[in-house]
Amino acid sequence: MRGAVLYAPGDVRVEERPDPVIVEPTDAIIRLSATCVCGSDLWPYRGVEKLDGAAPMGHEYVGVVEEVGGQVTTIRPGQFVVGSFWASDNTCEICRAGYQSGCVHRVLMGSIGTQSELARIPLADGTLVATPGMPDADLVPSLLAASDVLGTGWFGAVAAAAGPGKTVVVVGDGAVGLCGILAAGQLGAERVIAMSRHAPRQELARRFGATDIVTERGDEGVARIKELTGGLGAHSVIEAVGTQESMTQAIRSTRPGGHVGFVGVSHDVALQGDELFFSLVHLHGGPAPVRQYLPELIGLICDRKIDPGQVFDLTLPLDQAAEGYRAMDERRAIKALLLP
Amino acid sequence: MRGAVLYAPGDVRVEERPDPVIVEPTDAIIRLSATCVCGSDLWPYRGVEKLDGAAPMGHEYVGVVEEVGGQVTTIRPGQFVVGSFWASDNTCEICRAGYQSGCVHRVLMGSIGTQSELARIPLADGTLVATPGMPDADLVPSLLAASDVLGTGWFGAVAAAAGPGKTVVVVGDGAVGLCGILAAGQLGAERVIAMSRHAPRQELARRFGATDIVTERGDEGVARIKELTGGLGAHSVIEAVGTQESMTQAIRSTRPGGHVGFVGVSHDVALQGDELFFSLVHLHGGPAPVRQYLPELIGLICDRKIDPGQVFDLTLPLDQAAEGYRAMDERRAIKALLLP
Repeated sequence: MRGAVLYAPGDVRVEERPDPVIVEPTDAIIRLSATCVCGSDLWPYRGVEKLDGAAPMGHEYVGVVEEVGGQVTTIRPGQFVVGSFWASDNTCEICRAGYQSGCVHRVLMGSIGTQSELARIPLADGTLVATPGMPDADLVPSLLAASDVLGTGWFGAVAAAAGPGKTVVVVGDGAVGLCGILAAGQLGAERVIAMSRHAPRQELARRFGATDIVTERGDEGVARIKELTGGLGAHSVIEAVGTQESMTQAIRSTRPGGHVGFVGVSHDVALQGDELFFSLVHLHGGPAPVRQYLPELIGLICDRKIDPGQVFDLTLPLDQAAEGYRAMDERRAIKALLLP
Repeated sequence: MRGAVLYAPGDVRVEERPDPVIVEPTDAIIRLSATCVCGSDLWPYRGVEKLDGAAPMGHEYVGVVEEVGGQVTTIRPGQFVVGSFWASDNTCEICRAGYQSGCVHRVLMGSIGTQSELARIPLADGTLVATPGMPDADLVPSLLAASDVLGTGWFGAVAAAAGPGKTVVVVGDGAVGLCGILAAGQLGAERVIAMSRHAPRQELARRFGATDIVTERGDEGVARIKELTGGLGAHSVIEAVGTQESMTQAIRSTRPGGHVGFVGVSHDVALQGDELFFSLVHLHGGPAPVRQYLPELIGLICDRKIDPGQVFDLTLPLDQAAEGYRAMDERRAIKALLLP
């Protein structure tokens, strides 16, 4: 099969890789209908995360089940399925508490690589959620978004305690931040403030339900949020970048007793204990337990109540994955969808 | 009046200070029935927090109202009252959300000093809670504990989401940690694990409801907690120290999706973003909104359902405050009560 491999920073190649096979009796093999490039793929692409030799890439996926292992009982060949970037058993105590990304048997899909024609999905019964029948083709991008960026933005909004009566700020206008805006609205937030200075992203933020746009950053961004919230700060802030500046901005934009949901993969961030202490905020985040939300998100998408697939503003054949990486790296595209 | 003043690290003196007077029409003057030395008073006493000249000391207090300002409407002379270490209006949006320690008009009682015969209490209507009638003398230590250490331990337990079915770990065996144990039990926790290596504190931890004692610290402490929780970590961890080691131990002892309630005043702590991210814990803490819990805590104490006054294992006349500081600094006493 064809699949994307990162050889060195900036060097993504789509090449022949061995077809995946059932390794564990709990595995499934899927044929990908669509896959994509994630903002987090840019960390190794940019050389910020060290590479340990050539690495298969990708962890977002939707597709049709081709084959299942002998112990798979609920997933069947022919089903259209969506899964998260963590494979999880969905039965352990951590999964049952809703934290499938902390499953005691979890497998990181990025270590398998789903920017490819076929992929092995471990723990198929726990990981995969089948759609009700074969979805219309125009729903595929939104279902693919559910695999990571929508589920991650949703978790950010839940972790930030977005809900009725709340003012929610979203730091970061990438696909996850944009999906956080959508999630905050779905969860009933009264006001959703997007922090963005890019016109096309501002426009999508508005379409996803942002009521206000703030273009200032850092201390000025914090001051602007304070102005907009009677000097108190927001009830809820979703952090969807992962840098020291964005985390600091998120914490300082939150009122005492408010909630920060941080879902940007943290890079070189150190939080000062005394600042966090005196801020009185709630802080929660990490790798999103997307699996928890998949049934609900698939329902909303198939009922056409949400359309998160709009985050894909570039569609390429899988063989042109390198251009997808370049476009996202240069911020020419929000998110690149790849068709195997 | 007599009052304690810290002149330099290790140099606490009780001396004549001016009698407090009504400054704002929302003030009250109380005559202290009892006051005490806080673990956090030891930071400047030990020279860890810089002193900016001689400082009046103390922020915990119970006593009888002597006089009120012209705008005080609910507090009356003659009432026995308990207040928190933050004076707060209890009417602003932050207070109404339960975060009186983040009140937009808050005043730190430590800047006034309550290790004294009399004290001015700002925002008396918002700050003070009157007991139902004059309490029996033997209840005074417990009511004094409610002013800070009990309320702070309670907030730690709430922030750690202690409750039915939960295993709660308490890091720190000072008065706050011990009160956190008591609070976790009151909130219905199934199992409460105290981390302590001091026999008298272990004994009090047991009396307050600890079901297990762990004497290991650091990585060994974390390993022991994992052993006791099926490899997963605790649901809830109360951090009541404030150092890098204790925060790290608390976070690593918590399962994915679990809660850390941190109430030890943070000193020289830096949390690594990536560790926090991948831990998937909830983190919440800071200066406790004790005022929120006072009515409930006073009720439990006056009904003799809890006896947090046991944390006072040394009682001295106010004039011997210096010995109270020394005894706590040398860990000869858990907490020193001072009688004006």
